[in-house]
Amino acid sequence: MIHLYDFELSGSCYKIRLFLNILGKEYEKTNVDFVNKEHKNDKYLALNPFGEIPILEDGDLRLRDAQAILVYLARKYDSSGNWFPADAEGAGRVAQWLATGGGEIMSSAGARLVKILDYPLDLENLQAGANRVFGILNAHLADREWLELGRSTVADIACFPYTALAGEGGIDLSPYPNILAWIERMKALPGYIPMPGI
Amino acid sequence: MIHLYDFELSGSCYKIRLFLNILGKEYEKTNVDFVNKEHKNDKYLALNPFGEIPILEDGDLRLRDAQAILVYLARKYDSSGNWFPADAEGAGRVAQWLATGGGEIMSSAGARLVKILDYPLDLENLQAGANRVFGILNAHLADREWLELGRSTVADIACFPYTALAGEGGIDLSPYPNILAWIERMKALPGYIPMPGI
Repeated sequence: MIHLYDFELSGSCYKIRLFLNILGKEYEKTNVDFVNKEHKNDKYLALNPFGEIPILEDGDLRLRDAQAILVYLARKYDSSGNWFPADAEGAGRVAQWLATGGGEIMSSAGARLVKILDYPLDLENLQAGANRVFGILNAHLADREWLELGRSTVADIACFPYTALAGEGGIDLSPYPNILAWIERMKALPGYIPMPGI
Repeated sequence: MIHLYDFELSGSCYKIRLFLNILGKEYEKTNVDFVNKEHKNDKYLALNPFGEIPILEDGDLRLRDAQAILVYLARKYDSSGNWFPADAEGAGRVAQWLATGGGEIMSSAGARLVKILDYPLDLENLQAGANRVFGILNAHLADREWLELGRSTVADIACFPYTALAGEGGIDLSPYPNILAWIERMKALPGYIPMPGI
């Protein structure tokens, strides 16, 4: 049985819950008390020394990093090969946005941590970073329905949560109509589930 | 012909040069004047709106992000499948360290930018972040020769440059003997080439 170490309000954990639901895979989960930093205690540092969630266990395999977990789940349980393709060009194109989802878009996640959990981070700088990547994303989506390959892939899953949660970080998405349309397409995917705030 | 937009002193570009040499692939390159921010001008923003190098072109395909380029090159030109495996567990395990190479280890890259190019970043914070990830990496390498799968993969390539360049960011690697031994194994790989500072 797949086991997910999860926090309901984490957009990174939501990536995994969403993709597991799209794949139709059942799983067990442990709720981690993120607010009280349970993921930084010795038990969790033994599971993931980076002190982050999600963590996924599947049999003897344990994986950290939301994007790596998406790659694993796609390869393991998506027999179509559509969600993370095996061919070089498809894999490379999708991998670009895995980097963005775990990288630049996390500025939006940081802004949200300031707003909802009072993290001592530079809100203005994080909001500026988020707006920069949203501008790029909006332009990219001007003539595309999905981030790459003309279909939904783990690229979209990786970039979706902290884009759709931008408002909770005080970032207005109304200047980005192509992003707003993409969010609606995501919400219409078979197997879609929401999270609080989306 | 493969074309690389390159800067010799960029550890991220070096990841690609190193892997192309290991693969024995010839390529052309354009030197980008990173110091004078040529990668942020209109010509380069049209090639990569994120304003970063490396950028790789292979025929009609253009890719950004060093880790995504490594995934592409492995899938395309490594017929052994060893460098980025197609199986779920192998791909997931390696993808964890692609995230680390493009993520946490970039603290070392940031520290180096402060030291050698006077970037206005928080040196102390970057050095602390680099030491945190080097501590994790050193512990991970205590009973392993390579980051995953018992062999060299793109995980090692992605994490190598800004680990080996740590000294240029004022970070001492002597507390991390397992990292130092891994660096020596990297340098002994068939096809290994150095870069200035390594």
